[in-house]
Amino acid sequence: MLAIRPARPEDCGLLLAFVRELAEYEKAADEVTATEADFRRDGFGPRPRFEAAIAEWDGRPCGFVLWFYNYSTWAGRHGLYLEDLFVRPEYRGRGIGKALLVHLARLAAEQRCGRYQWQVLDWNTPSIRFYEALGARRLPEWITMRVEGPALTALAGR
Amino acid sequence: MLAIRPARPEDCGLLLAFVRELAEYEKAADEVTATEADFRRDGFGPRPRFEAAIAEWDGRPCGFVLWFYNYSTWAGRHGLYLEDLFVRPEYRGRGIGKALLVHLARLAAEQRCGRYQWQVLDWNTPSIRFYEALGARRLPEWITMRVEGPALTALAGR
Repeated sequence: MLAIRPARPEDCGLLLAFVRELAEYEKAADEVTATEADFRRDGFGPRPRFEAAIAEWDGRPCGFVLWFYNYSTWAGRHGLYLEDLFVRPEYRGRGIGKALLVHLARLAAEQRCGRYQWQVLDWNTPSIRFYEALGARRLPEWITMRVEGPALTALAGR
Repeated sequence: MLAIRPARPEDCGLLLAFVRELAEYEKAADEVTATEADFRRDGFGPRPRFEAAIAEWDGRPCGFVLWFYNYSTWAGRHGLYLEDLFVRPEYRGRGIGKALLVHLARLAAEQRCGRYQWQVLDWNTPSIRFYEALGARRLPEWITMRVEGPALTALAGR
């Protein structure tokens, strides 16, 4: 049986394990430098930077979802941004990913968020199909631009 | 002479004017439903959802930038997300857009944000070239998915 519950400070080790497992799936395991202490500070400190929920199957952690809030200056309202969604491979095919997406859709609707969004890698066709079947649409005209690392230091120094 | 200062609650009417002018440029003026009261609540209330800065040229408002914070579970750190950047047409060509981008890069660097990012419409080639010249790179492999309106209500009701 599936249960979804809010993440607690003592889940930070579990969250980090999930983040690493998800990064492996995305072929980027080397890029995870986060620590449990980071998640404790940023998820459960005086200024929370994210929220998270844990999915449990018969009491065993099987997946998670992590989100924060963005802002639409057109709608004049905050929106919900899903950063990470992950279900452990051995628990797939039971509707857990869908239940996590619906869980966040309810939270977004309760808060009257106009938008609920996330990003997906363009090669991840199974996920894109799954999201579209649930009512999501692609916004392929929006390109993400990023400054990081030495480029950020250089830009800040101009 | 250019000055960049934090937005104040009394700037909400100006922010809304800028947001509408930017939406016109993006061919989406009809989609702005935000009000001054929304911006006052969400920018200057007990739970700020965004931050903003106003650019002034010889004391006259000529542009703005508006941002919020996202979160990288790989970096274990919040990042800066630039939602809106706008310079009034009659003030373009004076380096104001660049100064606003650098202003936020400094803020991101001060806060040790690993990433500073935004989105741009794929047909907006002049802006893409401008951003790339400042050190930003495109992440074309990330596709944005969005659920909104009736689709959000339907998903929340599943």
